[in-house]
Amino acid sequence: MMTMGRLVNRLAAVLCMLIASSAACSPVRAEDGYDLWLRYAPLEGEALQRLQSFNPLVRSDVQSAQGSPMLSVATSELRVGLAKLTGGGPPTGNESRGLVTLRCGQSTAGDGRFTVTGSPREITISGPGETSCLYGAFALLRELSLGRDPAMIALSERPAMPLRMLNHWDNPDGHVERGYAGRSIFDWWRLPDRLDPRLIDYARANASLGINGAVVNNVNASPLYLTPRYLPKLKRIADAWRPYGIRLYIAARFSAPRDVGGLNTADPLDPAVRGWWKAKADAIYAAIPDFGGFLVKASSEGQPGPQDYGRSHADGANMLGAALGARGTVIWRAFVYQPENRADRTKQAFDEFKPLDGDFADNVIVQVKNGPLDFQPREPFHPLFGAVPKTRLMLELQVTREYLGQASGIVYLGPMWEEVLRADTGHGGSIAQMVAPAGMAGVANTGSDRNWTGGHFDQANWYAFGRMAWDPSLSAKAIAQEWTALTFSRNLAVIARIVPDMLASREAVVDYTGPLGLAHQMATGHHYGPGPWVCDLPRADWNPCYYASADKQGIGYDRTGKGSNALAQYAPNVAARWADPAQMDERYLLWFHHLPWTYPMRSGRSLWHELVAGYDRGVARVDTIAANWAALAPYIDAERHTDVAAGLSSQRREARQWRDASLAYWQSRNGLALPFGTRAPDHPLEWYRLETTPEAPGR
Amino acid sequence: MMTMGRLVNRLAAVLCMLIASSAACSPVRAEDGYDLWLRYAPLEGEALQRLQSFNPLVRSDVQSAQGSPMLSVATSELRVGLAKLTGGGPPTGNESRGLVTLRCGQSTAGDGRFTVTGSPREITISGPGETSCLYGAFALLRELSLGRDPAMIALSERPAMPLRMLNHWDNPDGHVERGYAGRSIFDWWRLPDRLDPRLIDYARANASLGINGAVVNNVNASPLYLTPRYLPKLKRIADAWRPYGIRLYIAARFSAPRDVGGLNTADPLDPAVRGWWKAKADAIYAAIPDFGGFLVKASSEGQPGPQDYGRSHADGANMLGAALGARGTVIWRAFVYQPENRADRTKQAFDEFKPLDGDFADNVIVQVKNGPLDFQPREPFHPLFGAVPKTRLMLELQVTREYLGQASGIVYLGPMWEEVLRADTGHGGSIAQMVAPAGMAGVANTGSDRNWTGGHFDQANWYAFGRMAWDPSLSAKAIAQEWTALTFSRNLAVIARIVPDMLASREAVVDYTGPLGLAHQMATGHHYGPGPWVCDLPRADWNPCYYASADKQGIGYDRTGKGSNALAQYAPNVAARWADPAQMDERYLLWFHHLPWTYPMRSGRSLWHELVAGYDRGVARVDTIAANWAALAPYIDAERHTDVAAGLSSQRREARQWRDASLAYWQSRNGLALPFGTRAPDHPLEWYRLETTPEAPGR
Repeated sequence: MMTMGRLVNRLAAVLCMLIASSAACSPVRAEDGYDLWLRYAPLEGEALQRLQSFNPLVRSDVQSAQGSPMLSVATSELRVGLAKLTGGGPPTGNESRGLVTLRCGQSTAGDGRFTVTGSPREITISGPGETSCLYGAFALLRELSLGRDPAMIALSERPAMPLRMLNHWDNPDGHVERGYAGRSIFDWWRLPDRLDPRLIDYARANASLGINGAVVNNVNASPLYLTPRYLPKLKRIADAWRPYGIRLYIAARFSAPRDVGGLNTADPLDPAVRGWWKAKADAIYAAIPDFGGFLVKASSEGQPGPQDYGRSHADGANMLGAALGARGTVIWRAFVYQPENRADRTKQAFDEFKPLDGDFADNVIVQVKNGPLDFQPREPFHPLFGAVPKTRLMLELQVTREYLGQASGIVYLGPMWEEVLRADTGHGGSIAQMVAPAGMAGVANTGSDRNWTGGHFDQANWYAFGRMAWDPSLSAKAIAQEWTALTFSRNLAVIARIVPDMLASREAVVDYTGPLGLAHQMATGHHYGPGPWVCDLPRADWNPCYYASADKQGIGYDRTGKGSNALAQYAPNVAARWADPAQMDERYLLWFHHLPWTYPMRSGRSLWHELVAGYDRGVARVDTIAANWAALAPYIDAERHTDVAAGLSSQRREARQWRDASLAYWQSRNGLALPFGTRAPDHPLEWYRLETTPEAPGR
Repeated sequence: MMTMGRLVNRLAAVLCMLIASSAACSPVRAEDGYDLWLRYAPLEGEALQRLQSFNPLVRSDVQSAQGSPMLSVATSELRVGLAKLTGGGPPTGNESRGLVTLRCGQSTAGDGRFTVTGSPREITISGPGETSCLYGAFALLRELSLGRDPAMIALSERPAMPLRMLNHWDNPDGHVERGYAGRSIFDWWRLPDRLDPRLIDYARANASLGINGAVVNNVNASPLYLTPRYLPKLKRIADAWRPYGIRLYIAARFSAPRDVGGLNTADPLDPAVRGWWKAKADAIYAAIPDFGGFLVKASSEGQPGPQDYGRSHADGANMLGAALGARGTVIWRAFVYQPENRADRTKQAFDEFKPLDGDFADNVIVQVKNGPLDFQPREPFHPLFGAVPKTRLMLELQVTREYLGQASGIVYLGPMWEEVLRADTGHGGSIAQMVAPAGMAGVANTGSDRNWTGGHFDQANWYAFGRMAWDPSLSAKAIAQEWTALTFSRNLAVIARIVPDMLASREAVVDYTGPLGLAHQMATGHHYGPGPWVCDLPRADWNPCYYASADKQGIGYDRTGKGSNALAQYAPNVAARWADPAQMDERYLLWFHHLPWTYPMRSGRSLWHELVAGYDRGVARVDTIAANWAALAPYIDAERHTDVAAGLSSQRREARQWRDASLAYWQSRNGLALPFGTRAPDHPLEWYRLETTPEAPGR
């Protein structure tokens, strides 16, 4: 009977190659993106034949495999994945001609290092712990999905950094701060009774990348997560994620002892406060033995923190660290941004944290955004990297596109992160090297939308974040190729069309929102459209006009010694690199220098003409990306093709609006004409000022 | 080549019956509920053989079928549905042994009446207009899905009422007021660029029931929908829905001429205001020629309205009616609820609208909720039905379960609506008869959740609403049987287990939230849990304590001549039926009468003991439903079974909480002991008072 099952599948597969009209040969439902990069689309041609003739049986060497949820996840993923790749059912013992053997230590600790070794009759996945087999299984499936010959597979990998985390800015009511993909995937209302199956597929996707931690709630944290009512909810998720190697963390509200603990202070040096946190941690660990720890945004943007009591960040972080002990980690954010007026907001984190170097407890990590401002399309790297050698630093990236067009069109962030990770800090290493002892966090872009991320191409950012956290030496290009093959098509011609546009897409959004080092030019509140004219917000450094400092004579923020001297926060060789506008990388020009509109650029153009050329280049690039995508219609399933095309149509309009609104505003400042032959803005400046988008996510 | 395609399907189908292990034989993905009642699960046994031997080719008699989007929807649904039911691909001309012929008039008007006539070789769908073929196609597919013999099919149907509508209480930002299934399905942010494919499947689902209109936004209406920026968004949806026979309506904010029109008044008698609405309607019709019209909530719960200018509801409604003209309909809600203190809130609609009978223009309909309070688990019917013979009345039902447990567990509303539709108004007909010239509206329960409605069984309420609007003579039981077979299983034993529990589920929620005619006992704001003790809200009739009027002596709201005399708003024979507590239907007892706790019930028990028995019956019923569902595990796909079980687990806890909190409160009023052998509440009253659910939807 079993062999008949195989026979049906084989017959169907062979006949399907001959005929196209049968419903049995094509999926009835269009692809909606839910399967992410774990589609395991059936192989074709030679790759299919190779895998079919290998036809492996999956087995585990470990006696206790039956009792190991993690090994059972690994074997089940392999069985399902192999069956889908061959377009058939799993093989039976009699028919199998090959083996996939899991040979891993039984420890649930270990960093997940693995080897995968192919041979004509057997592929072996091995490593010191169960996570080795988990990650090895997903790595093998990726290789096979990419069409590699099973016999030739030889992988030997280990993660570059211990913590590879997603930070969810999700609130108890389901709203996601800076979320553009629907509601939160965490339904706190129905938990713990109902565990959304989506949370299992989320864990699979993360495990496939080696992501091993997730903070389930917003850093602007509700204290609810620290109440007893939430513990069963958190436990239900942690239990579900454990077999996927994902530890659950929560963002902790620093004032929780006052908010929900019945105390009248949250002073980190107060014994009652310290006791409250210790008891809270004990209660959490009683329910969730592998609880990861706390992420904390404190004394920043109005959030409570140790400074409310005249204490330092180290006082606050170390108090929480003592409550967790060796069981967990405190991740303390360096994104501090206090309401007192400062000369230059980008200097504040360095000023506050540099003096604390060496003061943080062993289980405290300081989490630093890639740049010193706030997730702009391009910023120079954050000066703290390399500057606090006695502090473990973690890199915080934003996977969700708060300032980069949200979920419209295509903006692949791989090139930005490659730029960041490879940046030379001037302190004896790259940023990737500086954060290797701690890790990387990405602000997640997931939501309840069926495709998880709002736009199909935003899945690539989740994917790239995970891959780079595992191995920062991977190039944005290699990751894009891999992702495209797994997600859309193995057709090399299709990959060759898509990948260059992905790689160019980040520079496009830099160009059409603010070229030459401009930043923070977005509209208020939702951070979606252009607002360079905004100049009336109560605090100076909330205003785009403050950052561009555009007037009749020139534009740019002077961060040299004549200005805010933020440059001095960098290592001397780095500061020197950026000190001279004539010698420096012009992509950072107006971040560091205020220059006349007539300033001569290396292209020979004036700064003004170069700026216009930048906006125009960004708009033209998006037009090209959209045209290239349209031409791919025959090669992509209709549902996803249509959806991406709609997103690109939005992005084209947005790019044009950013460019036109910005140019109209700069002209209102400098009174200069546009270069000859340049298209005038579609509308007068006033029209752009009056544009409102009340339903924009983030309002 | 084509016959080989058929061969593969046949071979696969036959072999699949012999073997169970092949992946080709079972869907890889568990059922997530997205397909609703349109799953077209493959037939089995005799029904499969019958349909396979009939094996029909679908064709249209109409020459212009190619050019008709609606006929193309009908034929495509038939082809896909037939292929899925037989588990194969669509047949080709040579192989086909049967025909399904569409023979409908080419008009897009018409009420959708159809006949479907089977014979051994041909099934004919016919009727006067294109909607006849649309509705006939879905009706045929339903019959075939239920396993009926194609040759014996003989349907002849026409809708009982012209308007069969869903009202969405969805806001521009995606929040759904009283929504328990995620965010809005309408993504106004991405429209018009992106049309969510979900909106097509939504239209299919509605068309399959005969629902022919949808109001896309909340009655607490944002004026945005009347701005030029929204017109392309609305047009995109209307264009997509047109082939499914669904007209788009919007809820119009009465003050829009002031809010977004630049006028300083919204007085309906002001010529500028009238001109503004006329121009607005003209602009809408230029883009959407079949725009349905406006739904209006005015001068109620703080919404602007004609009373702001000393004008009547008729003045306001007729002004909008004049703007639409013959092109559309104004649906004016009778749910009026003004902040002035009233003796009895349930009397207000009757008091305001009865004197206006005969004053409304021909294209104005007044929409009346089923009961005079607000969608409680049980209310007597609204006294306006039958009382305003010169006014077209529409029945408004709430499909979403605002006061009935939201998306937890199983609450099938069919029995409630059957009760309402069949209620004798005392004015010469049932409510179904009274609304036949206008129609029915249901406040939708759809959202972005993959299963559309939050809970899988909530799909049944969408289904039942549509079926009853098409044919109010259908019984709740027949509809439940049909829905269960289409949605879960054709296994008669399974249907026999599920349907009685569905039918009992509404009485269960009445019992555990407020038996014997109690109402409005819910917590503030979210309307989810119990709050009988709430007595401190600024307005008397916001408080549950006001509605129960429980004191040491007794309980109930006196609406007889000695009390508010709301009873006098009903026809004399109806009022007489409810006037005498000793003779009346005890299910409405405390709605109309304040009675001593010792009042002797017909059961022989005291009122107090009868009340306790009611709560206990409700709790026990939910326990039974959950146990019965658990026993069905072998017959339901695991994903949906688990999900419903989780919901029932919530509902069991909620039922217990409602019962315990209510009894603890009544005991605090009456000081009486519980009947011997009755379980005491799990906690003291104070515990229930302190319960908070900050993440409850609706906060």
